[in-house]
Amino acid sequence: MRLTVLAGGIGAARLLAGLATVTDPAQITAICNVGDDLEWHGLHVSPDIDSVIYTLAGLEGEFGWGLRGDTHATLEALRDLGGDAWFGIGDQDLATHLFRTARLRVGMTLAEATADLARARGIEVTVLPVSNDPHPTIVQTADGDLPFQTYFVQRRAADAVTGFTFPNASNTRPTPGVIEAIEDCDALVFAPSNPFVSIDPLFAVPGVRDAVLRTQARRFAVSPIVGGAAIKGPAADMMRALGHDVSALGIARLYAGLIDCFVVDNVDADCVPAVQALGMDAAACDTMMTGDDGRARVATALLEIIERE
Amino acid sequence: MRLTVLAGGIGAARLLAGLATVTDPAQITAICNVGDDLEWHGLHVSPDIDSVIYTLAGLEGEFGWGLRGDTHATLEALRDLGGDAWFGIGDQDLATHLFRTARLRVGMTLAEATADLARARGIEVTVLPVSNDPHPTIVQTADGDLPFQTYFVQRRAADAVTGFTFPNASNTRPTPGVIEAIEDCDALVFAPSNPFVSIDPLFAVPGVRDAVLRTQARRFAVSPIVGGAAIKGPAADMMRALGHDVSALGIARLYAGLIDCFVVDNVDADCVPAVQALGMDAAACDTMMTGDDGRARVATALLEIIERE
Repeated sequence: MRLTVLAGGIGAARLLAGLATVTDPAQITAICNVGDDLEWHGLHVSPDIDSVIYTLAGLEGEFGWGLRGDTHATLEALRDLGGDAWFGIGDQDLATHLFRTARLRVGMTLAEATADLARARGIEVTVLPVSNDPHPTIVQTADGDLPFQTYFVQRRAADAVTGFTFPNASNTRPTPGVIEAIEDCDALVFAPSNPFVSIDPLFAVPGVRDAVLRTQARRFAVSPIVGGAAIKGPAADMMRALGHDVSALGIARLYAGLIDCFVVDNVDADCVPAVQALGMDAAACDTMMTGDDGRARVATALLEIIERE
Repeated sequence: MRLTVLAGGIGAARLLAGLATVTDPAQITAICNVGDDLEWHGLHVSPDIDSVIYTLAGLEGEFGWGLRGDTHATLEALRDLGGDAWFGIGDQDLATHLFRTARLRVGMTLAEATADLARARGIEVTVLPVSNDPHPTIVQTADGDLPFQTYFVQRRAADAVTGFTFPNASNTRPTPGVIEAIEDCDALVFAPSNPFVSIDPLFAVPGVRDAVLRTQARRFAVSPIVGGAAIKGPAADMMRALGHDVSALGIARLYAGLIDCFVVDNVDADCVPAVQALGMDAAACDTMMTGDDGRARVATALLEIIERE
């Protein structure tokens, strides 16, 4: 079964890692958000792509980003020099960004650099940035427009969010293979990622939404909200700030018309009828991907739902 | 006394460090070669500037480059990924290149980034790149034209050298302050640096040679060749390959017309008459800058010669 996963960072990475252990990884394609990418002291950093690759390789850090057991000699030296050190990059992580940036500087695309990184880490899943073009997510706040990492890391997601823009979206093209992966798969899965800053930026790339609407594949989404809270990151705060219900049902409303089946956690099973009333199927299973076992268990449950639908 | 030093890497760095301990560092200007600069995985590396700053800060590595006691976590990770790792950069050294590159990316000049680095390291000597413009040294060899670091580090200076070119020289301008530092100083010193790949690239920047010819300052050069061998680096091999006498006298011949006084090591004192026959003064002193003591001793001897002349 050919699976295509629309992916943000950590939640997507864990689901992909689970899926790769219970089905053929070579049949999985991850279409990754690049809205969080940043230029860090001249280096191109792609946090979502890196979370996906590191997690698929079993090397991810304790909190889902960076590399497990990494050291920070360069970051500390940079701080001592008075350089900007609010975005914490470890010494081994840094090698990834150097490797990627070297390739971009000689004219390779982000997709080519990503493929080389995935190959170097022994990843069989196809990892595609949604676009090779710059496609930043801008967070609109009471204090003005902020690049995503400025909002998220430097200012610790403390600003009141009023909206999001993708100012370069109209100049982006989908990476070769992205449209095909959406249209030609057997199941399309929206990972349990942030709808505003992980999934929406994918749809902002011209052609992606049409491909999702056009695909013959069954389309699934796994709720990133469980029991009224985000498993990871600022999704719940963003929903609240923008006037959405902070619930799995609130997520289902955002995806109405885009998916065929919404997967909620067992703790949210009571919202299944309300989700179905939105004109989609709904199913409940364990979605808490704690540890390697949890990832495999959730992936197995999701595959059962996919095969049943 | 205002001292301006034409500087390559390690030899110049040691002389500058000595001078800075025996005279007012705020009266010293180093005009640094940028022909060895390279882009390393997207980062701008300026080896000669870094050797000068690190040595002035007392932080230089055992062999004159990099930082003492540095670790190599990123380099090893980069090598594990299959990235180019032939140019060895340590973790703390890397912070310098990140700091510099971040500034260049936002439109600062190399001189401004260098001044910030020198300030961050507490350096009072004015450290000026000879030009803010790209100005690579190309080494011509039997195997073709090689960028300097490819010749020197990647291929371990093993190629037979046939010449040197500075292909972008005509597009470079001297950094603001360079011409003034040459013209308005009390003594101009050619550091004991490689004449072909440290000093010549300085002269290749339009205006520098004229300023050296025009200055009212007395002009001194310290021989990088002692007892028929280079203290450091490939100078002796290059001289031999290009048909020059591998001797202090051979260096003096290269600098005839550009300097007023040539300073040789005591072991080469017997060449003083031959140097004088070239139409310049000559003096001998200890020029071996071993350890902090050696640097100060050589700097003191050089200052005595300068004051005597």
